Order: sequence, then structure tokens, then C-alpha cells
Amino acid sequence: MTAAREIRLKSRPSGVPTHDNFELATVELPDPGPGEVQVKNLWMTVDPYMRGRMNDVKSYVPPFQLGEALQGGAIGEVAVSNDPSLKPGDLVLSMLGWRERFNAPAGALQKIDPQGLPPQAFLGVAGMPGLTAYAGLLRVAGLKDGDVVFVSGAAGAVGSLVCQIAKAKGHTVIGSAGGPEKVAFLKEIGVDHAIDYKAEKDLTAALARAAPNGIDVYFDNVGGDHLEAALNAARPFARFAECGMISMYNSTEPPAGPRNIIQVVGKQIRIQGFIVSSHADMQADFQRDLAGWVREGKVKWKETVFEGIERAPDAFLGLFKGENLGKMLVKLA
Amino acid sequence: MTAAREIRLKSRPSGVPTHDNFELATVELPDPGPGEVQVKNLWMTVDPYMRGRMNDVKSYVPPFQLGEALQGGAIGEVAVSNDPSLKPGDLVLSMLGWRERFNAPAGALQKIDPQGLPPQAFLGVAGMPGLTAYAGLLRVAGLKDGDVVFVSGAAGAVGSLVCQIAKAKGHTVIGSAGGPEKVAFLKEIGVDHAIDYKAEKDLTAALARAAPNGIDVYFDNVGGDHLEAALNAARPFARFAECGMISMYNSTEPPAGPRNIIQVVGKQIRIQGFIVSSHADMQADFQRDLAGWVREGKVKWKETVFEGIERAPDAFLGLFKGENLGKMLVKLA
Repeated sequence: MTAAREIRLKSRPSGVPTHDNFELATVELPDPGPGEVQVKNLWMTVDPYMRGRMNDVKSYVPPFQLGEALQGGAIGEVAVSNDPSLKPGDLVLSMLGWRERFNAPAGALQKIDPQGLPPQAFLGVAGMPGLTAYAGLLRVAGLKDGDVVFVSGAAGAVGSLVCQIAKAKGHTVIGSAGGPEKVAFLKEIGVDHAIDYKAEKDLTAALARAAPNGIDVYFDNVGGDHLEAALNAARPFARFAECGMISMYNSTEPPAGPRNIIQVVGKQIRIQGFIVSSHADMQADFQRDLAGWVREGKVKWKETVFEGIERAPDAFLGLFKGENLGKMLVKLA
Repeated sequence: MTAAREIRLKSRPSGVPTHDNFELATVELPDPGPGEVQVKNLWMTVDPYMRGRMNDVKSYVPPFQLGEALQGGAIGEVAVSNDPSLKPGDLVLSMLGWRERFNAPAGALQKIDPQGLPPQAFLGVAGMPGLTAYAGLLRVAGLKDGDVVFVSGAAGAVGSLVCQIAKAKGHTVIGSAGGPEKVAFLKEIGVDHAIDYKAEKDLTAALARAAPNGIDVYFDNVGGDHLEAALNAARPFARFAECGMISMYNSTEPPAGPRNIIQVVGKQIRIQGFIVSSHADMQADFQRDLAGWVREGKVKWKETVFEGIERAPDAFLGLFKGENLGKMLVKLA
């Protein structure tokens, strides 16, 4: 038996989540059974999409259950193994974050070869957020030569990789993020025009200045007024990859929709939502291309780190206050 | 010299157009010059998209000019010809509607072989509205086996053909239109579930009853609450062909956008606007398929006819009051 701490969903948030929605608990973990391993989590991720799973509604993933540990991406180290396929010290990726340790069948875990990257990179640039950026930009938006690319949430884990992939392929890139620190990061990664949306009264005007001839691709992490500005700036046959709409996740009543949605008709715009799991077939291409870009120094990333399982709710709540620069992570060991 | 009447744009509408925006004028038409023909228009069309051209804003077609005759599709008969390619009595299609007669270079006109159809069919089911339905459903929405199809403005020229093409291909079709007469027409053309949106308080609930398992394709002529209902009813990977949003054309301030637009992400919905002229390459396929469906009795159409050039504004204004069943036309001779 080993004691391990975990974060449970205590109550469902209405609107913006608060600390009251979470509780820290300690469980006594039995020794792993036959075919099982015990994993000590090193890092866990918090992501905006988790907000949706806190509501009791049908979605593309089932809702979190009250009184149970939350779930999410985590990378850990095998501590005890009762299966020949994994040995102590192996790195494994799982969806069993929000806890310090767990037992699981060896077959349910993905063994990771670190390839010189730090383990937490597999929760960010080399993991699900990385593939999200890659598939959304290249397949969903169908990036093609000459496209001018606009990215919202551009300093985040997904957005900053979208910007860098587009730059690596020679495109003009406009990124939007909140605050001078994020804007400085956007310039560091080579974005052509960085918009500090917190300093702009009129996002449509700001985007028109940054992209006077309009945009061809919009990678949307934000929704709301960013989506309206992108519709206003769109050139004919623009393609929008709808990755997320963090501006709307905590709304308690339906938020205003894009008032200029009618522009999709005359400009023949394509707006397409996507979920990374539908593009798992691109994983091998993504890993090959990413490795090349990292080698060539074309891809950089940032992390915002909270330490200790007890800080995981802080990390999650910080996402909605824009506290993260790059990937928001919790270091567990 | 021949006297001919025409309708001019007298002033630009703000919001819903009125009779004051139009004026009837008589011009003296000279004899056609070398290489020109004189055409006596038989029928002209009025279409919702013309409302956009009455605003002084850049769009995919230039705005109408004040004090000049309006433009739009018309089918007429060659009255005098100074060109060997056309002879008196030939049927020709042009964009020079809203007038009784005109002179034009023969090469600017499209000669029509009636193939047993009445001439005005080439302004409707066999013309631009027909190709709009065909391209929007088959290419833009990418209709595929098993799709459940929802059509708004389903009793109109475009919508009623969308419904019938989908039925001819064996799909379940839900059509929305306003009033019992239109609903009766939808049943006559084989629509599985007809929604009278004027009799429904809650369009989302009505659509959920008609399509309890959701919809895969939405052909949108209306926008507004129809678009919201379609987003609510959409199944994963649904495709929306955005043909028009008549509910929004007369808005003097930005209308409310779809408050549930966030559903495009989780459901991986594709919303795509289109204009028929981008799909002119489908013309030959369309004409071949349409001829077959007409022969097999699978395609019917309705017309709402106003007589005389002086009634053309009435016909146009009637579009926004839902007065047309099928194609709205003006008979000029």
C-alpha cells in the first residue's frame, strides 16, 4: 500500500470555476495486480477543454463524475511493474493525470521514447497540443502557398506552435495574445504582427492594420470578438480551423454569436471545427516534421509550471485568466 | 426607335426596401447597331441576393447604381438581329432584367435550347437557382449515403430543388417553410417532415421532433434561428452549405449571430459559404441530371408570377414577406 494524493471534482462549476469545485484527497493505493504497473506521475497537464467535461452534458467526451478524481494527460515513470512490456524507470503517457500515482494495466499506457526531449514536452509541443496545431493548420485549414495566417491564443501551447509551423513554411503570420509578456514571446518566435488584444478597443481595426489585404487562414482558439474580427478580415475562400473558443467556455447563458456570420456566404468562407483525436493518423508525420523543426531551431516553446498536486486547481483556473505563457503544467515529482 | 419601360433604383433602402426605392421610367431604344440584337424580355427574375446589391458596399458583385436600371436574370426573345449568330425568335438568357427591351452585342447573350421546358424554367429550376441547389447540396455539403438533410426556405426556388434532389437520391429530408400552403407543397414534393416555422415557437424543439437522431446536412437559405436550430441538431461531422441568410438581409444593425456557434468545435461541423458562379463547371452535369429527374417525374416546381414590369418591385418586396411559393417571377410579355 502506498499513499497518493488526487484532485476530485467536488461540485460542478456554474460559470467561472472556483477552488470550491475541487477537493484534495488521499487514497491508499494497493500493490499492482498481475499485468499491471504502478506509475509515479512526473507531470500533468491542465487544458481548457477540461472545462467542458465539468458540465453534466453529453459531449465528445463523457463528463467528469462528482467525487471522483479528474482525468487528463500525464507523463510518469513506471515505479513497479508486473508486466514484461514495461520496466521500472520507463516513461509512460496516460490520461490519468490529477493524481500522484496510479495502477493500470500495462497495455493501457503509451511508452514514450524521450528522443532527447524533456518528459513534459510530451504533454505539449510533442504531444496532443502539438498534433492539434499541426492537424488544424495543415489539414483542417488546408494551409497553402501564399496564405496569410491569423492565430488567436497565439502564445498558448497550441497557438504558438501554429505560428511557428506557419513561419517555418514561409507564411505571413498575425498572432493575438493578451499582455506585453506574451506579445514579446510572439516576436521572439518570429510572428510578423503581434496584437495585444487587451490593449485594443477594436479588434477588427487592429487586425485590418496588421493584415491590410486580409487573411486566408484563421486558427481560432478564442471565439467571440476574435471570430468576428477574423470574419471581417477574411479574404474570399478563407478557411477557419475552429480549435476552441475559450472566451465562451464559462458562459452561464448563451454568449453572443458572430453578428457578421453572413459574411461566410459572399466570401465563400469555410468554418470547420475539429478535435485532435480525429486526426491521429497524422501522428507519424507530425513527429517526423516536429523533430526536424526542433533540430533546425525553428520551434521553441514556453512552459508555465505550478508545483505539487495541490496547486493543480490553481493551474487550471489560471488558464481562464490568461496566466499561462505556453503550456500550462503541474510538476508532480 | 422603340419605347421600353424599365425599373430604376431611386434610392438605397435602409432596412426593408419599400416602393419609394424604385422608379418606373420609359426609354427610347435606338435600333440595334452592327453585331447587336434587340431582345424583348419575356420573363425576369427577382432574387434575395439583389438586396445586397442595393447597398453601396463592396461585395462579390458591384452595387447597383442610383438612377440606373436594376439588373438581374431575364429570358427574352430576339426581336431584331444584326448578327448572324442569332435570329428573330431565338430565346436568350441575360442579366438585363428589370426592363422590357434592350440592345446588346450578340456575343453577350446565352442562347437557350428550350428542350421542352417553358422559357421561364431557365430562370428557375433549369437556371441559376437550379445549379445553386445542385452544387450546394452535392459539392459544398458533400451529400453522402445515409445523410439526413435539413433545408430552410424549402418551398423556394432553390430549397424545393434541394429537397427533391435529396429525395431522388434516397435521403430523409426535413424542410422548413412558412405557412400551410408551403407546407402542403413540401409534402407534395415528398419531403419527409415539413416544419411550418411560423407556427413553431421553438425551432430547435421542432427540428428535434422531425429529426430525433439529428441531421448530417443543412442547406441554409435563412440564417438566424434556423442556423441555431441546425447547429443544435447537427450530428458529428455535419456539413452546412450556406447559400443565403434572408432573415438578415434587411437588418439595419448587425443581427444576433448564432449563440451556439461553439458547437462547431465539439461536433466537428463544417460551415461553408458559396456562390453559384464558383461552381459553373458543374453546369453540364447539372443539366444532364436535371433532365433525367424531370423525365422521371422526380422534380416539380412552382412559380409565383407577377405580371408587367410595373409589378417588379412588388415581386421583389414580396420575397421578404415570404409571398412566393417556388420561383418568384415577373412576366413581361
